[in-house]
Amino acid sequence: MKITLAHGSGGASTKELIEQIFAASYNNPVLDMMEDSAVVDGSKKIAITTDSFVVDPIFFKGGNIGRLAVCGTVNDLLMRGATPKYITSAFIIEEGADTKDLKLIAAAMAQAAKEAGVYIVAGDTKVINGNGGIYINTSGVGFIDGPDFCSSRCKEDDVIIVSGSMGDHHAAILSHRMGIKNDIVSDVAPLCEMVLALKNKGIEVHAMRDVTRGGLGTVLNELADASKTCFELEEDKIPVNEQVRSFVKLLGLNIMHMGNEGKLVAVVAKKDANEALRIIRESKYGENAAIIGSVTSGDGVVMKTAIGGKKKVGILIGEGLPRIC
Amino acid sequence: MKITLAHGSGGASTKELIEQIFAASYNNPVLDMMEDSAVVDGSKKIAITTDSFVVDPIFFKGGNIGRLAVCGTVNDLLMRGATPKYITSAFIIEEGADTKDLKLIAAAMAQAAKEAGVYIVAGDTKVINGNGGIYINTSGVGFIDGPDFCSSRCKEDDVIIVSGSMGDHHAAILSHRMGIKNDIVSDVAPLCEMVLALKNKGIEVHAMRDVTRGGLGTVLNELADASKTCFELEEDKIPVNEQVRSFVKLLGLNIMHMGNEGKLVAVVAKKDANEALRIIRESKYGENAAIIGSVTSGDGVVMKTAIGGKKKVGILIGEGLPRIC
Repeated sequence: MKITLAHGSGGASTKELIEQIFAASYNNPVLDMMEDSAVVDGSKKIAITTDSFVVDPIFFKGGNIGRLAVCGTVNDLLMRGATPKYITSAFIIEEGADTKDLKLIAAAMAQAAKEAGVYIVAGDTKVINGNGGIYINTSGVGFIDGPDFCSSRCKEDDVIIVSGSMGDHHAAILSHRMGIKNDIVSDVAPLCEMVLALKNKGIEVHAMRDVTRGGLGTVLNELADASKTCFELEEDKIPVNEQVRSFVKLLGLNIMHMGNEGKLVAVVAKKDANEALRIIRESKYGENAAIIGSVTSGDGVVMKTAIGGKKKVGILIGEGLPRIC
Repeated sequence: MKITLAHGSGGASTKELIEQIFAASYNNPVLDMMEDSAVVDGSKKIAITTDSFVVDPIFFKGGNIGRLAVCGTVNDLLMRGATPKYITSAFIIEEGADTKDLKLIAAAMAQAAKEAGVYIVAGDTKVINGNGGIYINTSGVGFIDGPDFCSSRCKEDDVIIVSGSMGDHHAAILSHRMGIKNDIVSDVAPLCEMVLALKNKGIEVHAMRDVTRGGLGTVLNELADASKTCFELEEDKIPVNEQVRSFVKLLGLNIMHMGNEGKLVAVVAKKDANEALRIIRESKYGENAAIIGSVTSGDGVVMKTAIGGKKKVGILIGEGLPRIC
C-alpha cells in the first residue's frame, strides 16, 4: 500500500497505519496505552538525547534506517555512561512511501530495541508531500546509575581506545550510492554490551563518544578542545578493514573523516587501559578494538605516521558525504 | 544565508550552524555541554512523549512551527498529569532554507520553552535535499508527582470541559493556504498554567487530552472507546469564535474534526466540575472554557443539537487538512 497524505490526518487512516505497522511491531504495555505521553519508572539522574535519521538509501548492506535510528540513540545514551531505557520513534513519511518498507523498518527497530534492552514507549507519524522518502527521529532516556562520562575529563596520560575498524558505514553507504559492487557492510550496532561491561568492571573511563558523522578526526578534536589536551595518535594502530582501506585509497577519501555507526572511542585512565581493551575485545562488536594513542599536553589532534612524521588532524570541513545517517 | 547539504555533514559547517543559531537561542548549562546526551535530574516516575511538526506554512498568524513544536510536546506531557521539564529539539532542514527563518523559529522555541518552564536540553540537525522546507521533532520528559491522568478512567456522570473555542488553529492554517483574508489567529499555546492549577487544587481529573489533529470528535471517540462509556455533548455549548463559525459554514467543514494547538478537553468528576471550570477560566488561555456535556453509559460520542435532535459524532475519516501541525 502506498502512503497518502490521509495517513497523516490524525483520523481513521492514521490510526490504521499506526495499529497495523508501528504498534504491531513495537508492542509493549506502555506503548499500547496509546496516550499522549508514556508514563514510566524514572531514576534520580537521567540522560536525554535526540537524533533524526535521513540516511539515503534507507536500506543498505548491514542494516536499514530503522536499525540505525535505534542504535544511534542508544549509543548516544551509552556515551554519557547511561543505561539506555526508553526510546521514542517519530516517523516523517513522504507520500508515496510503501507500507511494505515501513513494516521492514519497524521490525528492524523492534529487533534493535530488543537487542539493546530498551522499550519503544512513544511514537508519532506525520506525512508530507514528496516522493516516498522516510525520515525517523528517535529520542532516548537512560538512567545514570554510576559516574557519567564527560568530554572535559580527558587527562594527560589517558589512553585512547577505538572499539573497531573505522569507516565501514560510510564506505558502505558511499558504495551503494556510487553503484560500486563490493562486500563492505555497515557496522551499525548498539554498543550496550561493551559499555555496560566497562562500567560494571569499574574501569575508569573519562570520556566516550561514538564515532559517527564527521569521523574520528572530528570527534577527537571535540574531545581535545573540551578537555584542553592534545590527542596523539599512531596512524598504523587505527584499525581499518582491508576492503575499506582500498576503497578509501581509490577515491582519495580521508579515513579520519568517515562515519561509523557501531564504533566508539573511549578515553581511559592509563592504569585501566589494557583491562578496558580486553573487555571491549571480548564483547559483541568489539573484537577489533585497539589502543590508538594517548592524551598529552598541548592541543588538537596529532597523528604519528607510519614513516615517523607527524601531521595535524583537523575536523571535517565542507560537505563530506551528506545523509550517511 | 542559505542552508546547503554541508550544514548537515557533522563537520565545521554543522558546528557553525548549531553555535550561531540553536545554541545561541536555547543556551542553558545542560545544552551548552554539547555532549552526546544531556544528563539531568530525574524523578521516580516520568512521562515521555515525541511529536514531529511538518506544518505548512511554517509561519502563520499567531505563531510559527517553532512555537508549535514546543507547545505541542509540552501539552502532551501535561495531558498525562506530568509537569513538563525537558525538551529536545531536532531539525530536519531541506537545503535552500534560510538561516533568517531558522533564527526566528529557534527564538520562538526558546520563548515558548521559557513560558512553559522547560529546558531545551538536547538537539540535532540534519539537512536533506529539497526546497527549503523545515521539519522539527520535539520530544519531552516530564515528572509525575501526583496521580497521572488516563483515558480509561472516564466514568459515568463525569463532566466534559473544553478550555476554549474549537478550530482556531485549523482555520488559521487553512485561511493562509487558501489565501483568504480574515482575522483568524492560531491558538497555539502551552497549557501549563491551567493544568498545573487543576492538579495543585486537587481537582479530580480522570482524563485529559489536547484537541489537535482529528479534532474534538476524534479525541472524544478515543476517550469513549478507552473507557467504554458514551460522551454526550450539547452542540450549542461548544465554544466557537464567530469568525471561525462563519468560515466553517462557508466551506462546509465540520468543527468537530478541526484541530487546535492550545486547547484541551478535561473529563472531571461531577463534584469538582464547577471548580475546575472556574480554575481553567481564570488561567491564561482558558477564558472561554465551557462545560460541553457529560459521560453516560453506552458508547461513542453523541451530540444533542440545538433543535433537540441527537446525532452520532464520528472520528475523522480520510484526509482532513494535511500538515496542520
